[in-house]
Amino acid sequence: MKGRRVSAKPTISDVAARAGVSKGLVSLALNDKPGVASATRLRILQAVEDLGFRASHAARALSSSKTGTLGLVLARRPEMLRADPFFPPFIAGLEQVIAPIGMALMLRFVSDVREEKQAYTELANGRVDGVFVTDLRQADPRPSLLAELRLPAVSLNRPSEDSRIPAVCLDDLPGVRTALDHLIALGHRRIAHVGGPQEYLHADRRRSAWAETLSAAGLPPGSWVESDFTAAGGARATAELLDAPHPPTAILYASDLMAVSGMAEAHRRGLSVPGDLSIVGFDDAELSAHLHPPLTTVRTDAFAWGQASASAMVALLGGGVVTDVQLPSASFILRGSTAPPP
Amino acid sequence: MKGRRVSAKPTISDVAARAGVSKGLVSLALNDKPGVASATRLRILQAVEDLGFRASHAARALSSSKTGTLGLVLARRPEMLRADPFFPPFIAGLEQVIAPIGMALMLRFVSDVREEKQAYTELANGRVDGVFVTDLRQADPRPSLLAELRLPAVSLNRPSEDSRIPAVCLDDLPGVRTALDHLIALGHRRIAHVGGPQEYLHADRRRSAWAETLSAAGLPPGSWVESDFTAAGGARATAELLDAPHPPTAILYASDLMAVSGMAEAHRRGLSVPGDLSIVGFDDAELSAHLHPPLTTVRTDAFAWGQASASAMVALLGGGVVTDVQLPSASFILRGSTAPPP
Repeated sequence: MKGRRVSAKPTISDVAARAGVSKGLVSLALNDKPGVASATRLRILQAVEDLGFRASHAARALSSSKTGTLGLVLARRPEMLRADPFFPPFIAGLEQVIAPIGMALMLRFVSDVREEKQAYTELANGRVDGVFVTDLRQADPRPSLLAELRLPAVSLNRPSEDSRIPAVCLDDLPGVRTALDHLIALGHRRIAHVGGPQEYLHADRRRSAWAETLSAAGLPPGSWVESDFTAAGGARATAELLDAPHPPTAILYASDLMAVSGMAEAHRRGLSVPGDLSIVGFDDAELSAHLHPPLTTVRTDAFAWGQASASAMVALLGGGVVTDVQLPSASFILRGSTAPPP
Repeated sequence: MKGRRVSAKPTISDVAARAGVSKGLVSLALNDKPGVASATRLRILQAVEDLGFRASHAARALSSSKTGTLGLVLARRPEMLRADPFFPPFIAGLEQVIAPIGMALMLRFVSDVREEKQAYTELANGRVDGVFVTDLRQADPRPSLLAELRLPAVSLNRPSEDSRIPAVCLDDLPGVRTALDHLIALGHRRIAHVGGPQEYLHADRRRSAWAETLSAAGLPPGSWVESDFTAAGGARATAELLDAPHPPTAILYASDLMAVSGMAEAHRRGLSVPGDLSIVGFDDAELSAHLHPPLTTVRTDAFAWGQASASAMVALLGGGVVTDVQLPSASFILRGSTAPPP
């Protein structure tokens, strides 16, 4: 075992006594299960901290661990990662859970499916105890590959194919629907979408939610462009939509980065945002609150997603029965880039 | 040894013959030494690729490697990392060199100096063969810590204190000076600076280059604000400068993210950029070319920095004598956010 030693001394009963709750509630809280009020959860975590208690899953995960290492393989071009606001807080969230128990993260960047397969095969060959599966794709080869490699895994959301990998799920759709309801309530009827590559399940889901919400509101289908999550792609897609004979009065983007370059494209054409064109992003990137106008967007909590994924992994490696975890859904953040149509 | 096996069959003579150059030149090129024309270097790298040749340093690094793993410890708050355009391409550059020889990167995020020391100590305890030292600080404790831990290291630029760690250096200053010469030539006399935390050597160096260039041009000292590389910090610093009795007509920022939120702050006040205020960033982030106006900035090649750092590390672990490597300096990128003062 690498890293710090784990003291097994304080028990779950000690934690329960100190927090003034039942042992069952401590267990729920430590395994990130629902049914614990947030004030109670905080009290339990404080007791855990005060006593130096290590949940038995963590202790068991460590004692059965061969490498003390977890893996993350990212199959994205560097230019797509460069401005991605997701991975740094996601990794920071992972770290907050694994670092105190002496585990560390191995990161691999790969550029195609062949390299990806090779990277997982190398990791499975005694380099890591488990991997986090992000950016799920259509017909994703990874669930079956990981089963074949017998490499424990936790996925972010559920793959479209059959998978026995426990999933930590965060639903984008409520945020997207609320954003569209807001635009519709403002009076918009031509609401377009700039999507990410549709091979990604999250990009496909955001586009479907957009299409379904328009349809449910009795609006005609909107126009949309498949883009690539880059700033250049967002600007090009926006130009294409604005050049159409009946341009949209509002655009919903699958990422803040594309929304920001889309906003610049509108400004370049002399359009006012939100006077002539309303814009909604997705992510709530660091910059988005500090633009002019500040960007209305949909927020997901990548840090919490990292923490929950790491907790699920630790439980899994500790031999726990890990069921899917459902995190709070994406939320709508109303700022200054939306207004009634001209 | 982990990962792929390395064939020792093709020799350096085979590479030299195929590229039509001397063995000495092949060695220089493979060790990233100066004195090889870039067309020649490309021809040598092509020959290496064609023959499946692995430089003996790589082979020796791998055969002496205990872990097949290199470490990177980042001591930054997640919100500072979230929009940092440096690390993803830097890590991608590292990967391009280490992945083909079966090595992988272990990443640690830490939040303070105590955690940082602990992370290096854990890594030195049989988890990695060497570490990359980024974000050098004033009186940085890491060179002496790493010497004490006997952990091989490569630093990005030279520490201010005595250090035996080989450094891969990229000089920011020529880019900063050219940017300022451009502003001065346009007629600006009140050129302010929004800096990063001055504990970082790179932030301090950018500020010094700004101050020295103004002084060398015979201009009075400009005003400056120490900020924190966040969008919120960039907006606040800009507001402070613009609220002064004699506000600047141009601002040079230590990062693009702060420059973009500074530009939004100017727009919020009804100032035109560049008509009323010229703005220059630093980084050349993905978004910067796609703003309105597109951001004039200074570019550093983080991907090349990653490649060169990994090559130096592989040479070091292979027992090579590694001297400091000097990369091409930061370059000035003229776009649309600068113009003559009003």
